[in-house]
Amino acid sequence: MSHAREVLQASSGPVDFGLDEVAAAIDACADAAQACTSCADSDIAEQDVAAMRDCIGLCLDCADVCGATERVLSRATRYDNELVHRLLLACVRACASCAEECARHAAHHEHCRICEEVCRACEQACRVLLDADAFDEQRAPAGG
Amino acid sequence: MSHAREVLQASSGPVDFGLDEVAAAIDACADAAQACTSCADSDIAEQDVAAMRDCIGLCLDCADVCGATERVLSRATRYDNELVHRLLLACVRACASCAEECARHAAHHEHCRICEEVCRACEQACRVLLDADAFDEQRAPAGG
Amino acid sequence: MSHAREVLQASSGPVDFGLDEVAAAIDACADAAQACTSCADSDIAEQDVAAMRDCIGLCLDCADVCGATERVLSRATRYDNELVHRLLLACVRACASCAEECARHAAHHEHCRICEEVCRACEQACRVLLDADAFDEQRAPAGG
Amino acid sequence: MSHAREVLQASSGPVDFGLDEVAAAIDACADAAQACTSCADSDIAEQDVAAMRDCIGLCLDCADVCGATERVLSRATRYDNELVHRLLLACVRACASCAEECARHAAHHEHCRICEEVCRACEQACRVLLDADAFDEQRAPAGG
Repeated sequence: MSHAREVLQASSGPVDFGLDEVAAAIDACADAAQACTSCADSDIAEQDVAAMRDCIGLCLDCADVCGATERVLSRATRYDNELVHRLLLACVRACASCAEECARHAAHHEHCRICEEVCRACEQACRVLLDADAFDEQRAPAGG
Repeated sequence: MSHAREVLQASSGPVDFGLDEVAAAIDACADAAQACTSCADSDIAEQDVAAMRDCIGLCLDCADVCGATERVLSRATRYDNELVHRLLLACVRACASCAEECARHAAHHEHCRICEEVCRACEQACRVLLDADAFDEQRAPAGG
Repeated sequence: MSHAREVLQASSGPVDFGLDEVAAAIDACADAAQACTSCADSDIAEQDVAAMRDCIGLCLDCADVCGATERVLSRATRYDNELVHRLLLACVRACASCAEECARHAAHHEHCRICEEVCRACEQACRVLLDADAFDEQRAPAGG
Repeated sequence: MSHAREVLQASSGPVDFGLDEVAAAIDACADAAQACTSCADSDIAEQDVAAMRDCIGLCLDCADVCGATERVLSRATRYDNELVHRLLLACVRACASCAEECARHAAHHEHCRICEEVCRACEQACRVLLDADAFDEQRAPAGG
């Protein structure tokens, strides 16, 4: 656990939505970003690196998207709700794709097993925010 | 202009969609990420920093989202189309929000005028990819 | 605590230096990057934002340097020792500068008090690696 | 070319050192970060991926260090000179290591040839700042 909850609570800005849920999502994103960076590195060192290509790419993407989501969520004094909503949708997808691919290798690569677990937890933590409509999307036209 | 187009073209992986449009979006994201980082810094140094709070926050968010989008788009040998689609939607929103706020200060802060222009260009470059359905979203349930 | 240690241990690549120390530094960098991002955001929302300019800038720098250090340390299967050494020196400086400035505001801004503490811990975790000569710098000429 | 120079010039904060040299380094870092991200991705897709392991790792490290250096340099209204100095030393190393490895593959992988060139240019742009003592290091004890 990071100090995310503690710092959020000390902020003078309001967090409209549940502080615990936001802090949990920040921590989950940070954990997933790290696990994905490390898993990609381990994939590259594996004997069967040629079979790990998709895993490497999805881990690298997931690390970047989780990192950006963590940062945007950490700026809790004034959220652009629609941006947060869209970013959470991207993060959910990145984690789900990465977890699905890691699952294929979990039996023979322990780092993939852990990475899958961490990505699933991050996907879930982001879904909690989405399901609570914490960051209501102003229903704009697609791409709007 | 960066070397984005040149490196993409040298890649052994296919770029299904127009190489020029993807390279343009990568360059636009990179430019926006830099301009937003610099604009936020300049905002902080302004006499009227208290009036620039929204601008600082939106610039910082935009820098992070554009940075992640640039990186994911740069991994062109195998795109997770749905992830790219969602990330482009987030990037379009981040750029539009930032540009709108910068526009309010463009008359008295030259860095805001430039940042608005650069963000609008990035928004447009991302919309080109979205409008061309280059990255078709597999229509999933909301949050799916 | 993240899953850094667990993923590192699952890696097929060797970690010459103590696994625990590297994992501790990764976690400390991740924690500092988050706290600094959040502290900068809280600074901006404070009434005395004009007095917080240095704090905001140092927090943003520290977040970026800690984030890069975390990622490079997470790629443990093959370190460029000299790069890691230099990056740790930069990270130690970023954390020390940020902590020093946050300390000035710790009495009236709780988020600064926490951020100072987290940055000091990160500085310390990086110094452990430097002091152990875990990443020996091949003594190159300045700028070499 | 990005808008780095234009935004720097519009900043109310002073840039003690040559504006052109700082803007050039920012652009060079941005270009290298992108080229390295793209080169790593192309490496992964190559038939001889097993021979590209070092290249992938060094490219990923270089992208992260150049990205952080770009951001810190972009915050030109108040530099922590010693931090910038140390970060430039890390960036010079990251670029040199990456360029050296890319050079080994330049004959058969065009993306490595381009990446080498871009990294060499970034190394050089950072050295210009270091050689000019633009960011004097307050001579602290090693690790200080």
